[in-house]
Amino acid sequence: MVEENNLQSNLAFRPLTPTGKGLGDVTAQPVVAAVAEQGWNLLREDISLPVAVLSERRVQHNLQWMKSFIDSYGLKLAPHGKTTMSPALFHRQLAQGAWGITLATAPQVQAAYHFGVRRVILANQLVGRANMSIISRLLQDPGFECYVIVDSVANVQQLGEFFAQAGQRLNLLLELGVSGGRTGVRDAAACDALLAAIAAYPHSLALAGIEVYEGVLGDDATIRAFLRRAVHTLIALDAQGQLTASKAILTGAGSAWFDLVAEEWAGVTLARPLDIILRPGCYLTHDVGIYKAAETRIHASNPIARAMHSSLLPALQLWAYVQSLPEPGLAILGLGKRDAAFDAGLPVPALHFRPQDHAHTGTAAPVAAPADWTLTRMMDQHAFMQVPVDADLQVGDMLALDISHPCLTFDKWRQLLVVDDNYTVIDAVETFF
Amino acid sequence: MVEENNLQSNLAFRPLTPTGKGLGDVTAQPVVAAVAEQGWNLLREDISLPVAVLSERRVQHNLQWMKSFIDSYGLKLAPHGKTTMSPALFHRQLAQGAWGITLATAPQVQAAYHFGVRRVILANQLVGRANMSIISRLLQDPGFECYVIVDSVANVQQLGEFFAQAGQRLNLLLELGVSGGRTGVRDAAACDALLAAIAAYPHSLALAGIEVYEGVLGDDATIRAFLRRAVHTLIALDAQGQLTASKAILTGAGSAWFDLVAEEWAGVTLARPLDIILRPGCYLTHDVGIYKAAETRIHASNPIARAMHSSLLPALQLWAYVQSLPEPGLAILGLGKRDAAFDAGLPVPALHFRPQDHAHTGTAAPVAAPADWTLTRMMDQHAFMQVPVDADLQVGDMLALDISHPCLTFDKWRQLLVVDDNYTVIDAVETFF
Repeated sequence: MVEENNLQSNLAFRPLTPTGKGLGDVTAQPVVAAVAEQGWNLLREDISLPVAVLSERRVQHNLQWMKSFIDSYGLKLAPHGKTTMSPALFHRQLAQGAWGITLATAPQVQAAYHFGVRRVILANQLVGRANMSIISRLLQDPGFECYVIVDSVANVQQLGEFFAQAGQRLNLLLELGVSGGRTGVRDAAACDALLAAIAAYPHSLALAGIEVYEGVLGDDATIRAFLRRAVHTLIALDAQGQLTASKAILTGAGSAWFDLVAEEWAGVTLARPLDIILRPGCYLTHDVGIYKAAETRIHASNPIARAMHSSLLPALQLWAYVQSLPEPGLAILGLGKRDAAFDAGLPVPALHFRPQDHAHTGTAAPVAAPADWTLTRMMDQHAFMQVPVDADLQVGDMLALDISHPCLTFDKWRQLLVVDDNYTVIDAVETFF
Repeated sequence: MVEENNLQSNLAFRPLTPTGKGLGDVTAQPVVAAVAEQGWNLLREDISLPVAVLSERRVQHNLQWMKSFIDSYGLKLAPHGKTTMSPALFHRQLAQGAWGITLATAPQVQAAYHFGVRRVILANQLVGRANMSIISRLLQDPGFECYVIVDSVANVQQLGEFFAQAGQRLNLLLELGVSGGRTGVRDAAACDALLAAIAAYPHSLALAGIEVYEGVLGDDATIRAFLRRAVHTLIALDAQGQLTASKAILTGAGSAWFDLVAEEWAGVTLARPLDIILRPGCYLTHDVGIYKAAETRIHASNPIARAMHSSLLPALQLWAYVQSLPEPGLAILGLGKRDAAFDAGLPVPALHFRPQDHAHTGTAAPVAAPADWTLTRMMDQHAFMQVPVDADLQVGDMLALDISHPCLTFDKWRQLLVVDDNYTVIDAVETFF
């Protein structure tokens, strides 16, 4: 615990990079812990735009919302860290009671471990000598707990040989999949073959339970059937004595269907202790696109979510300048594919603000951007915003944009600034993609 | 020059990050200059996949190809640095005679300056107090030369006021644009208004010439007409005594139409010295998508390119493992939207390799991937590769994938490895997005 605290504080004492984007004046290389002392305010134009900012209030709200939801069902949370790859945010999730952090690749696990995360689900197959070596090195720390996914005999044999040579025992989760889906064993025969392969390496492999990713499916009934198949399989494995790890685990849930997973799995028990772990990642920042759509569905159908009388809030915004008004009805913003996700809908203008200039013609506070201001296209470093020909816009005006798909926005930023409700910068979080 | 060499060598002595992806064992944190000594070989599985690798031979070929092309026309080159944001590659471009580096944002200019680049075109509007402050700080170095783009009276006034207060003089390029295009003044009236605004700040603004980005247009004749408009405008500005900077500049050319720019502008002269500067960025790594298509057109029509008897070569590949073969005809690769561009075509399987295992069933060298192995979809961390049901594929096999749109691939990687023809790692380059 002492060590973990040290690693957390390492994050606070890393300097902001003098080569970064979306920052204030970093020529003095302030450390993260000193960011609040810089007195940077977004609306006072202290920050280079484009910038990605997190609302402290909204992030905190989302952390508590998900904790309440998970606690209501008596489940555990291992948020998917691939979304943010921000250990500072991982530690906030852990401080809110998260069981551990989920990650997608061996290097991601290594980055999380480097900054003090000690319990991890690698929700992916671990393939290749160098990737296995990374996990093996981390497992030299007896305080490090890691579960990886398997879905093929070949991979089980590769892992069995490698970890036998390393003199280590690797915890596995058997991944169930669906026809036409992504990874995961499709049927009972494949499952039995996999179990036999695992059983051939009793000293180097230990089976802890079942993993699914229901997000490849698209409707309620099919997802529930898949989730029940996972429960039945887990119970059968337990009955057959196939669960050889010290812990039993059942895990699923992306960011879109975690409500169904909670409903289906709450109350599932084995004769032995069982951790039922949900893995949503995008709840932390939410969005106004794919995950807002998911939440609308959740609130319409899930009684716990409805009883909470609050929703997840979009907590990640991008700010950009109007850099050109080249012809009526068109504003070019200084923001592009290098700054924001564009694969699940373009960013959506949310707020409009005119900074104070020497003639004091600025606005006092940001106002809602009119609904007919719409991004129609993004290039690498530019966004095309269609507006009415009489729109009140000037070069140098600032726009806040909500986003869809936080994952692909986070990975464009090495540092994000955390702001209070006055857009004063109170913290920064680094990413490690 | 001493300072520049020091800054270059700083790059060589930065340690590889212990939290990075696509690297070998970095627990000892080798510096970039020591990467070759690690003895890492991609085919021996020393590297964590997915990885982004640059072929040293092909990068060198592309550098020389573009130098020959530009030299043949008697033009100058300021490669767009936004593509790679890799100062190590900028210095190779400068060492091959590049006039300077083009960049898209003030923080990009700052990053390039930080690592020794001293002549820059900021091929974008400079908007906002913090962005102007960045450029102003860099201009305190009398050895730093920078040109920024303007296309509006409002922006000119903002720049004029800011740099007057700073007691500095900023070099401008007037951007011409086309109706329905991106930034840039559309007509003569807007151009005249802009010139009048610039002339109002004789002590803080200096006009150096004309900038265009012809890449928003899509056909030969329209592009040539636009390029001629740029020449006529430049000649008129010179005749009117509007070019108040110490240098005269005419600049254009993205990565797709640089041949037309060269053809149209070669031989353009003023009574005073004129630098005609082309700004392609993607030639360095090329691709097998949008820029391969452009090059096919160039080779069909440009006499210099034809006479060179060689083409740009795709120099950037991603390698990934087959991590699951869940059903016949489908392979899941450990590679996704977090690793590769997907906006201009998905990555294309190029090579197939089976590593040696304990049973020595591996292949001796990579072979061409069959043409019917095709990526059909990418998720954040997975790619779906459709293959014939009898494809010879195993979990743990390695695929090399060619890419389309290098820009959006580079920005997924903080470090790329440079390999020789045997896939031995001989260098690494960092990116600073």
